[in-house]
Amino acid sequence: MTLDPFMQAAIEEAEKGLAEGGIPIGSVLVHHGKIIGRGHNRRVQSGSPTLHGEMDALENAGRQPAKVYQESTLYTTLSPCAMCSGAILLYGIPKVVIGEHKTFLGEEELLVSRGVELDVVHNERCVELMDLFISASPELWNEDIGE
Amino acid sequence: MTLDPFMQAAIEEAEKGLAEGGIPIGSVLVHHGKIIGRGHNRRVQSGSPTLHGEMDALENAGRQPAKVYQESTLYTTLSPCAMCSGAILLYGIPKVVIGEHKTFLGEEELLVSRGVELDVVHNERCVELMDLFISASPELWNEDIGE
Repeated sequence: MTLDPFMQAAIEEAEKGLAEGGIPIGSVLVHHGKIIGRGHNRRVQSGSPTLHGEMDALENAGRQPAKVYQESTLYTTLSPCAMCSGAILLYGIPKVVIGEHKTFLGEEELLVSRGVELDVVHNERCVELMDLFISASPELWNEDIGE
Repeated sequence: MTLDPFMQAAIEEAEKGLAEGGIPIGSVLVHHGKIIGRGHNRRVQSGSPTLHGEMDALENAGRQPAKVYQESTLYTTLSPCAMCSGAILLYGIPKVVIGEHKTFLGEEELLVSRGVELDVVHNERCVELMDLFISASPELWNEDIGE
């Protein structure tokens, strides 16, 4: 099966994060078939508690008019936490493609209840990246999800 | 009536934001009676779509163990949007003191449903700061709330 190029780009971001010693979660924001923002979790690299992968992609997309978000799809390698789900709701992003939700199940129920379309693609590489990281640094992962 | 010094600090952050030409929303994170992070909305100043006042305060507090958030109170001059509410839920911040919710009513219902204690103090200076900004730059305010 061919992997969606946008999920592939999100995975590449996650892999960059792992190579930097960071938490391997990546994300891209796609508008009309074009990546307008890409990023990965920066807790370790920048000491940031707010730059999860999804937030970093939004940050790197820069300021956008409401209409752009409302026509975009967010790709993320891991089910979005409450903060990232809140950002999706704030900006009215209508669709989120999720690499996996086996490692961590975020606020998918809340997103669906607000009309966001979710597509969980159960990608094995996404799971493997998290397994690699969590087995090496469980405390960093717990910190990232406030546990 | 004497103003809570932490709400006063959040208002000072909002005022700094206004003086910089930014959206006047400020926030402080308080742990055991001490401010550990303070910030204000940085959409205009840093071109940031993610650094709302509350997010900037969290970012400036840096990486904290889960326990610190769980013992902290977040002060914000304006009712927290979906993104900032999500961050509050992610980190399990148990109490939020809100300057006003007349200009904008955020995700207060969601926060309460998840057990977060809210205290809306109906501060007139908080309302005034937003009135000043929105009457001058309605388009910037709309952008900030994804409208």
